[in-house]
Amino acid sequence: MKIRQLFDYDTWTYSYLIWDEETKEAAVIDTVQEQVERDLQHIQQLGLKVKYLLETHIHADHITGAGPIRKQTAAKIVIHKNSGSECADILAEEGDTFLLGKQIISVLHTPGHTDNDITYLIEGAAFTGDSLLVRDCGRTDFQLGSNEAMYHSLTQKLFSLPTDTRVFPAHDYKGFSESTIGEEMNFNVRVGDQKTFQDFSTIMDGLNLPSPRKIHIAVPGNMRCGDLDD
Amino acid sequence: MKIRQLFDYDTWTYSYLIWDEETKEAAVIDTVQEQVERDLQHIQQLGLKVKYLLETHIHADHITGAGPIRKQTAAKIVIHKNSGSECADILAEEGDTFLLGKQIISVLHTPGHTDNDITYLIEGAAFTGDSLLVRDCGRTDFQLGSNEAMYHSLTQKLFSLPTDTRVFPAHDYKGFSESTIGEEMNFNVRVGDQKTFQDFSTIMDGLNLPSPRKIHIAVPGNMRCGDLDD
Repeated sequence: MKIRQLFDYDTWTYSYLIWDEETKEAAVIDTVQEQVERDLQHIQQLGLKVKYLLETHIHADHITGAGPIRKQTAAKIVIHKNSGSECADILAEEGDTFLLGKQIISVLHTPGHTDNDITYLIEGAAFTGDSLLVRDCGRTDFQLGSNEAMYHSLTQKLFSLPTDTRVFPAHDYKGFSESTIGEEMNFNVRVGDQKTFQDFSTIMDGLNLPSPRKIHIAVPGNMRCGDLDD
Repeated sequence: MKIRQLFDYDTWTYSYLIWDEETKEAAVIDTVQEQVERDLQHIQQLGLKVKYLLETHIHADHITGAGPIRKQTAAKIVIHKNSGSECADILAEEGDTFLLGKQIISVLHTPGHTDNDITYLIEGAAFTGDSLLVRDCGRTDFQLGSNEAMYHSLTQKLFSLPTDTRVFPAHDYKGFSESTIGEEMNFNVRVGDQKTFQDFSTIMDGLNLPSPRKIHIAVPGNMRCGDLDD
């Protein structure tokens, strides 16, 4: 599977274009509304056929470009069934699989940032959304986030993957592009080096982060897959 | 060879950490002064031995972190001989090679942005500095830049590489992380699709870009490898 990382500077969001080299069947993970034109041009230039628009969760910091891209490509929008999405084509749950050519994408439910986080797995790589970030993890203080769920998702589910699995997050704020499961088991500042749930919970409860500035338009916009004109 | 892309948000600069998995011998391409602490911590966490600090040219938009990293690691600073660098350990020229374990890094002189641009080649990948950017190229209007040299570097040297060679630039301003030689031959807006030198020159002469805001401190700072206290 080929992987192309794309970045939205305004919201520090990574989107990913992944495709099967043989059939050119493709998926876009976490597109950003303002980048739809760029992404569609890139898809066209690479000669790809977009089959799936994979959302890792209902984002609070940006509006998805999935709806607009679906209109241009007829791709299917996938999101976790807990999301309550009014517009997705497929409400996925743990264990579901999708094919690009012969390449398998599988769904791991990794809640904690929200109740509807998905990590999409392909051979050798995990697209971890706002669950596992490089040396960090997503916040747990809104959208049914939960310290308990996040700790379980990170330490029991994601840290059970092979240590050389590449980790591709939905955001980064320090200029990191990727990591590996092994690195995060050792060096993640919130759960690495065998931190206990108590250690983790103390860190998370002390973050005092401001609310994402776009949350009041992003969440309802994403419940409609970013189809804002409809 | 393992490749890790790192980003400096303030100057839109990509640095690269590359290493040989077997021996853990590493090089850092185009470090940024403000990111030295991040980079050194990452190098330490990954258990790497930095052998080379590879500069693609004397940058005008940021100050290199090569000098400060050399002090911590004893790595050798490499830059093109045309740079007039007062502090580099190795003044390189086309055809020079460097080893990380058994992996070969080779030097291609690709002037045009300046007179001292190097593209560093490893198997399957080219670190093109400010010569070839994704769908774009570096400006040619200062530091002995030249439309003629840039056109030759792009169309004769870089476009002679295998089309599936991955392209890793020193900057991007649209959220692209990488490309391939084949994509750029087709879709680069300045030289792709067999644009003539006249086409190219008209585009470059019409850019009217503002001067990089840090140029007056960056160029002299980089002539001293970023060792600003010495």
